[in-house]
Amino acid sequence: MSAFDGIAVGDPVEFGSYEFTAERIKRFARDWDPQAFHMDEAQAAETPFAALCASGWHTASVMMRLQVDYFAAHRGHGLSFGPSPGFDDLKWPQPVYAGDRVTFSGRVVAKRRSRSRPGTGIVTTEFSGVNQNGEAVFSMTAHVFVAAA
Amino acid sequence: MSAFDGIAVGDPVEFGSYEFTAERIKRFARDWDPQAFHMDEAQAAETPFAALCASGWHTASVMMRLQVDYFAAHRGHGLSFGPSPGFDDLKWPQPVYAGDRVTFSGRVVAKRRSRSRPGTGIVTTEFSGVNQNGEAVFSMTAHVFVAAA
Repeated sequence: MSAFDGIAVGDPVEFGSYEFTAERIKRFARDWDPQAFHMDEAQAAETPFAALCASGWHTASVMMRLQVDYFAAHRGHGLSFGPSPGFDDLKWPQPVYAGDRVTFSGRVVAKRRSRSRPGTGIVTTEFSGVNQNGEAVFSMTAHVFVAAA
Repeated sequence: MSAFDGIAVGDPVEFGSYEFTAERIKRFARDWDPQAFHMDEAQAAETPFAALCASGWHTASVMMRLQVDYFAAHRGHGLSFGPSPGFDDLKWPQPVYAGDRVTFSGRVVAKRRSRSRPGTGIVTTEFSGVNQNGEAVFSMTAHVFVAAA
């Protein structure tokens, strides 16, 4: 059975959760997004965010990591994804603040065989991240190529 | 003059370039996207990518870092961006391979004052990353809130 055949539309999968400690927020920001509201509590207090919060790219990267770990642990293989034709609607509806714990999940909403790439399927997945208060803090719709031969 | 008033539609800005060395690709992947094609040359050769290539989140994170550094160096301040209502059309049209040098730029394509948030503007920017062969490897359209009071 191909990876494509093994994917069922509607399957919700919870990848896991991650605590955005102040230390983790600052470490990511130092490398990739050194803006004041991601680096320093006092400076963050003076911005519209009002407190230290994670880079949106940190949140997205955590989603990726938890997803990879989930598939490695539960499916016994990597994602087997090829290149992606693109992602839509990347959103961070609420800031992720220091101390927040965010749970990430994905749900396959559509799949079809590619017309231009024989042996390849295109799978559309809605990803989401929800904090400990039940608030959505991350969402994204991804289209990825999956082996279908 | 507010940050919003200082932004001109059509302004192209080149943020800088970055060499995706194998070491940098693997280091990001170890933390955030430990898939074989981002971690190991031999295993990558057996995948549709055919060679070691960067995580898409690495490419996005580099874009963010170069943008922050550019504004810090050339405008003397941080981005002054508030929360983002969302990004559209995040694409990685070609893989970024080990040894590629990618140049990132942004172009403001629209700006307007927010109706729901007084004193705030919404700026739409098209971001792109182009490798040393002139091939697009990253594109994204971002909408961000900017102080307009």
